[in-house]
Amino acid sequence: MSKEITSRAEDYSQWYIDLVRKAGLADYSAVKGCMVIKPYGFGIWENMRDQLDRMFKETGHVNAYFPLLIPKSFLSREAAHVEGFAKECAVVTHYRLKNAEDGSGVIVDPDAKLDEELIIRPTSETIIWNTYKDWIQSYRDLPLLINQWANVVRWEMRTRLFLRTAEFLWQEGHTAHATRDEAIEETRKMLDVYATFAEEWMAMPVIKGVKTANERFAGAEDTYCIEALMQDGKALQAGTSHFLGQNFAKAFDVQFTSKEGTLEYVWATSWGVSTRLMGALVMAHSDDEGLVIPPKLASTQVVIVPIPKPLPELTEVADKIAAELRAKGIRVKIDNDDQNRPGYKFAEYEKLGYPVRLGLGARDLANGTIEVARRDTREKSSVAVEGIADHISALLDDIQQSMYNRALAFRDEHITRVDTWEEFVATLDGKGGFVSAHWDGTPETEDLIKEETKATIRCIPLNNPQENGVCIKTGKPSSQRVLFARAY
Amino acid sequence: MSKEITSRAEDYSQWYIDLVRKAGLADYSAVKGCMVIKPYGFGIWENMRDQLDRMFKETGHVNAYFPLLIPKSFLSREAAHVEGFAKECAVVTHYRLKNAEDGSGVIVDPDAKLDEELIIRPTSETIIWNTYKDWIQSYRDLPLLINQWANVVRWEMRTRLFLRTAEFLWQEGHTAHATRDEAIEETRKMLDVYATFAEEWMAMPVIKGVKTANERFAGAEDTYCIEALMQDGKALQAGTSHFLGQNFAKAFDVQFTSKEGTLEYVWATSWGVSTRLMGALVMAHSDDEGLVIPPKLASTQVVIVPIPKPLPELTEVADKIAAELRAKGIRVKIDNDDQNRPGYKFAEYEKLGYPVRLGLGARDLANGTIEVARRDTREKSSVAVEGIADHISALLDDIQQSMYNRALAFRDEHITRVDTWEEFVATLDGKGGFVSAHWDGTPETEDLIKEETKATIRCIPLNNPQENGVCIKTGKPSSQRVLFARAY
Repeated sequence: MSKEITSRAEDYSQWYIDLVRKAGLADYSAVKGCMVIKPYGFGIWENMRDQLDRMFKETGHVNAYFPLLIPKSFLSREAAHVEGFAKECAVVTHYRLKNAEDGSGVIVDPDAKLDEELIIRPTSETIIWNTYKDWIQSYRDLPLLINQWANVVRWEMRTRLFLRTAEFLWQEGHTAHATRDEAIEETRKMLDVYATFAEEWMAMPVIKGVKTANERFAGAEDTYCIEALMQDGKALQAGTSHFLGQNFAKAFDVQFTSKEGTLEYVWATSWGVSTRLMGALVMAHSDDEGLVIPPKLASTQVVIVPIPKPLPELTEVADKIAAELRAKGIRVKIDNDDQNRPGYKFAEYEKLGYPVRLGLGARDLANGTIEVARRDTREKSSVAVEGIADHISALLDDIQQSMYNRALAFRDEHITRVDTWEEFVATLDGKGGFVSAHWDGTPETEDLIKEETKATIRCIPLNNPQENGVCIKTGKPSSQRVLFARAY
Repeated sequence: MSKEITSRAEDYSQWYIDLVRKAGLADYSAVKGCMVIKPYGFGIWENMRDQLDRMFKETGHVNAYFPLLIPKSFLSREAAHVEGFAKECAVVTHYRLKNAEDGSGVIVDPDAKLDEELIIRPTSETIIWNTYKDWIQSYRDLPLLINQWANVVRWEMRTRLFLRTAEFLWQEGHTAHATRDEAIEETRKMLDVYATFAEEWMAMPVIKGVKTANERFAGAEDTYCIEALMQDGKALQAGTSHFLGQNFAKAFDVQFTSKEGTLEYVWATSWGVSTRLMGALVMAHSDDEGLVIPPKLASTQVVIVPIPKPLPELTEVADKIAAELRAKGIRVKIDNDDQNRPGYKFAEYEKLGYPVRLGLGARDLANGTIEVARRDTREKSSVAVEGIADHISALLDDIQQSMYNRALAFRDEHITRVDTWEEFVATLDGKGGFVSAHWDGTPETEDLIKEETKATIRCIPLNNPQENGVCIKTGKPSSQRVLFARAY
């Protein structure tokens, strides 16, 4: 067990923070609630971002950039939206500082007060739909399929690196459509993109579903989501895709002339994932020794360590193996440090979560073999140097798949069907995970359950089987089970 | 001449704005001074960003992300820095809005006032060096070679799309070194990266030089720059690389233990380019018909237009040609619109500045030929369909090179050596461009010249020949010529 990192059994929450900080993913900053994403963490985020960006482009989207600052009055335009977001905004009131007359430093210049305050975007529906008004006149201008990569700020009192920070990085897709059906299709399509990304790239199984009214995005008619399960049995919302109906089109008066010549309001969607996914990645796979990064997202997939140190005859072989691996598109690093001992290095690479470590010792080489250690299972094996590139290539695929399978088995073991309130509470307090239970369909009951257990309805799964039952809390009739969990 | 776009001769400034807006690069937003970067413009910026990012990584840099918000007191730490930046900052004073009691909308909650105001970063030296204090203890932690892609805000009263906006996108490199020499070497290396990018990718020749004290970055010991010339004879600073000495290390107390065991302050550099380069790209190459985008940065390099419209026998050939071009890595679009006439389409593609347009007509095809139109010179030629991919590949290289050569010839014609004040003023007012003249080396004379002519010293070119002369303004002795110009 790593000495720097608290074990999961001891304190799961501290384990997470230790890992994020000690493995160099992120750290706290001098600004309350804002984090610094460190180079190693940012490299993994870049891999996530680049893959998502490719998937957005393959589905016909283009990127654009809208202002960071939003006039305060814009937030009031959509009634539900302002209720959801106005309470936690960073507000810009002045545009200049000046030297204090007593020489003590700089102060806000009272003469530089803005006529209307500006809000740092907590999300961009308002500024974007105000812009779309100029861009959309006719059905020929539709659909508009635009995505933005940006930083947003939501003031948070209790923050946790990646999972909840005042500033975070994200992408927000904002699309405009001529018909309701087309907008709903887009909402579902992007949910599928997120699910594919989570499962195939993050090796993290997710449940696709729709949120209840209580958990819906402020201003949406429907919020679809992907929900993942962390190792401590808590759920994590990993992405959302909103069908916004005509709410924002009406709020910002965005109408178009249809093919038939009638004037109609535009239909909208928005969808986003954020650096929160970094937190999900850590909590889905890592262990007490450190991070476990899936090969597809690892910035270094294979590290070669000459043992006991980088002697010329060893680095020559290391260079050759690295070249063979790179020729197959594998991201390799050779450890040329001659200060630290192999044991120390192994622990470091386990902490960083590199998927494969190759130990290159003189005795093994004499036998034509090399030691291959995989990070996910921590298994070691002796493999022939001959054909090593093919072996590693297949191994990386296997690790990616094994990580997914393991997380899927864990997730599936942690979906518990319960039919009584006692079972419900006992499951949440004991085993954790998702609890599949009947609910009477009212927001009031949902609130009551949340108040008593801290569990929320994570989603109503897509294609949910219909089944008659009674609500675990009120005993009233119910037509389907929904998934409850305590969540991040 | 495009009807939507003012000609350069009529009003150069309006030509620029018309072009940026009508070609879909950017537009004004509802927030004063902030722009919307539209999808077509953002696609070109993405190509610029991705190439720069590759070049930064090839030179050993990694990306990270630091907070958007900076405590006000940080700005006061470095004396020169606060003078240069504090005057034009967006200031966050509150963190919450609330519903107005009279139901009129939302107002700033007076109870949610921050203890210390936060500034939206105008540049990130302060927050980054405050962080580096935790990251640097020993010479083993150096060098630290970090870059950040980010948005920044500098309050501007007079704005112009891309060239000067309150919010803009940029990258800022911030490196830390053990020695003065190594930091200076880094500063020069990144200047070279910028120059290579400007010349080889933007097809825009630049002069590398160093700024005078008047034009230096607030907090730098030396500011290196690349200066380009626009078609109206005004200069544009296209990138800067700063040697910061130990100023920020001292301001934020960042010391390291050297190999010899002594405690020393860290040496620093910072360097940046921004979406301003988009403005430079437009003004360096475009004409009265629209944009002219260099092939390496064009999101669409070749558009295929079936004439008079996409008939089945034509689109079949278009698909085949497109496949051949794509196999060579060429970015191709086929125009399948059947509403507009070819003349309209040609004008549209000239406005967008796609480097090559292929006209595919039935009669040409019968002859085994196709019409090839290049955007830069607007020349058309008839080319055999057989081997078209090789032809286009070579043509794109030729266009890239020709655009550079043409801009270089224009630039070189517009460097004028003058020896008297009368010639100096006459050149600025007439021919424009860079004026190479003797200057007595004092900030006072530089200010005086700026006041009288609006010309500034753009740079002292690197490896500037030493030559005795007298200052054009004061007649005092001078040891070298410097480059003056009116500038954006």
